[in-house]
Amino acid sequence: MLENRRFLLMRRPNGVPVAEDFRLITEPLPELPEGRLLVRNHYVSLDPAMRGWMDDKPSYFPPIPLGTAMRGGTVGVVVESKVPDIKAGEWVYGFNSIEDYSIADPAGYFKVINAAEVPSPTVYLSVLGAAGMTAYFGYLRVCEPVAGDVVLVSGAAGAVGSVVGQIARIKGASKVLGIAGGPEKCARVVDRYGFDAAIDYRGKTVEQLSAEIRELAPQGVNIVFENVGGNVLDAALNNLALNARIGICGLISEYNNVGGKTGARNIWQLIVKRASMRGLLVADYMDQFPQAVEEMAGWLRTGQLKYDEHIEHGIENCLSAFLRLFSGDKDGKLLLKLVP
Amino acid sequence: MLENRRFLLMRRPNGVPVAEDFRLITEPLPELPEGRLLVRNHYVSLDPAMRGWMDDKPSYFPPIPLGTAMRGGTVGVVVESKVPDIKAGEWVYGFNSIEDYSIADPAGYFKVINAAEVPSPTVYLSVLGAAGMTAYFGYLRVCEPVAGDVVLVSGAAGAVGSVVGQIARIKGASKVLGIAGGPEKCARVVDRYGFDAAIDYRGKTVEQLSAEIRELAPQGVNIVFENVGGNVLDAALNNLALNARIGICGLISEYNNVGGKTGARNIWQLIVKRASMRGLLVADYMDQFPQAVEEMAGWLRTGQLKYDEHIEHGIENCLSAFLRLFSGDKDGKLLLKLVP
Repeated sequence: MLENRRFLLMRRPNGVPVAEDFRLITEPLPELPEGRLLVRNHYVSLDPAMRGWMDDKPSYFPPIPLGTAMRGGTVGVVVESKVPDIKAGEWVYGFNSIEDYSIADPAGYFKVINAAEVPSPTVYLSVLGAAGMTAYFGYLRVCEPVAGDVVLVSGAAGAVGSVVGQIARIKGASKVLGIAGGPEKCARVVDRYGFDAAIDYRGKTVEQLSAEIRELAPQGVNIVFENVGGNVLDAALNNLALNARIGICGLISEYNNVGGKTGARNIWQLIVKRASMRGLLVADYMDQFPQAVEEMAGWLRTGQLKYDEHIEHGIENCLSAFLRLFSGDKDGKLLLKLVP
Repeated sequence: MLENRRFLLMRRPNGVPVAEDFRLITEPLPELPEGRLLVRNHYVSLDPAMRGWMDDKPSYFPPIPLGTAMRGGTVGVVVESKVPDIKAGEWVYGFNSIEDYSIADPAGYFKVINAAEVPSPTVYLSVLGAAGMTAYFGYLRVCEPVAGDVVLVSGAAGAVGSVVGQIARIKGASKVLGIAGGPEKCARVVDRYGFDAAIDYRGKTVEQLSAEIRELAPQGVNIVFENVGGNVLDAALNNLALNARIGICGLISEYNNVGGKTGARNIWQLIVKRASMRGLLVADYMDQFPQAVEEMAGWLRTGQLKYDEHIEHGIENCLSAFLRLFSGDKDGKLLLKLVP
């Protein structure tokens, strides 16, 4: 009988999650029911959104119940199948749990990968996974780009932001500016992802950030793709062009706050510039993922789209790996490898 | 020679404007140049937006230069005309200055009124003026209503909010909720303007306001028409329906702030509900005012649209009248009558 290690949420974190909020358990796997797959999870995607799912607040998904495994996107190999169309040995990915093995419902989000056609099955957790799809649909559908736009992307070195900037370039932006944390990330944003310039937000006030954006985009920015919030968003609001569109993808600067929320202090600028701010959730576009994956895979083949993955190892290191999202100590899409 | 009293801005207010920020002067009127009208201003519109124009900050209009007359919408009678199509004795209205007499350029915003066709020439400063047009275009163009929407309007007893709620009803909203300050205004919102219910925001926390909205709109609100900001906006954000639209018309709770801005603390809800927040400025729709005035005048005639005007008297009382916008001590569109 197979043993299954599972990473459970045991307590709602107060601010930054700590070890006592979780428990790693080992339990025997039950027999596989009809209509289900037994999947050996090889990689799990670690995403800022997970922090929100740990809280007991109404959100776009229900909170993770205490005592159950953390929710997460995984990619793995079918060990046993009681489903007609999927065989043992095939790669699959889906929205699952952080555990060695998952008993998965093949309906809905769970899809078979042709592992031979992509550089690595991990791309379904990074550039062709939820992060890449967020960039694709968030930019193209929510930000409504037109050729010639000046585009500002926060979290520009991250899994979503780096792809947004490259899609903006491919789709005809006249200037693509990034905001990132620290000189190394800023260099990567420009040198590897092809942004025109990057601003290091660390240690800077709203006024300083506003002035740096203004210098790079004196006529204002037409699109803001926002992953961060706080000072970064307020500085972007200070630099809108007329009728600018702000896509709100995430607010990572707030996820571990225990006090009041910062939000967007400069929304007065929405009136001044008749601008809009719109929230986006990638799950809304799930039925259109196949076409997007096809277009994105084409850009990967031609080398127009670059991506990076940062792989941490071992389910027992899940928390410390996860916290790299908030410290910024990672270089690319953060993944946790579960197999030795 | 005519003498002209003019209300000048002399100093940028710090917080709530005080008497020392202004000066009332009397000066002789110069001779009327060719191509201009001499207008005796009878009424001036007092609007929250004026507070922003007093500040030296980049905005949708340039700041009022110190030492010049306060900008404002006025309605008055032509005393002398050096323009072919307009005669002495005709009523005109336009975007002008707070002064007894204006030497006006008839181009652009300045239009002749047929005073016989409306209840009073003051309607061009209230329900058929910038306030009414803001309600009309802000609701219909920015909030993108569909039949059956649940609509929440803040500043619901005000010149803009009261009209928004009535247009929402006319255009097929299923429920129209208002937020206003004090029990008398709340009663007026329901009894006179026909809202389904009104919430008194005074002395309430975001949590209390959120709970009161939730009770009235358990499925959330599809449209928020925001005039106030602060706690009121945060409570609205807590009660959005999926794909809700928030039109940001004004943020009167912030205009006299000297400390930090509150903004919108709960913008995380834009992601949760894939909602949008968009700023609006009525000047963008100026070329479409005539059609809107025609439709609105029709609703006035049928009695579907009710409006109120609160008239204060005397240019020497301009500041104390203006401050009623922030204390809420008024019942309808705030106007200042300049003629005895």
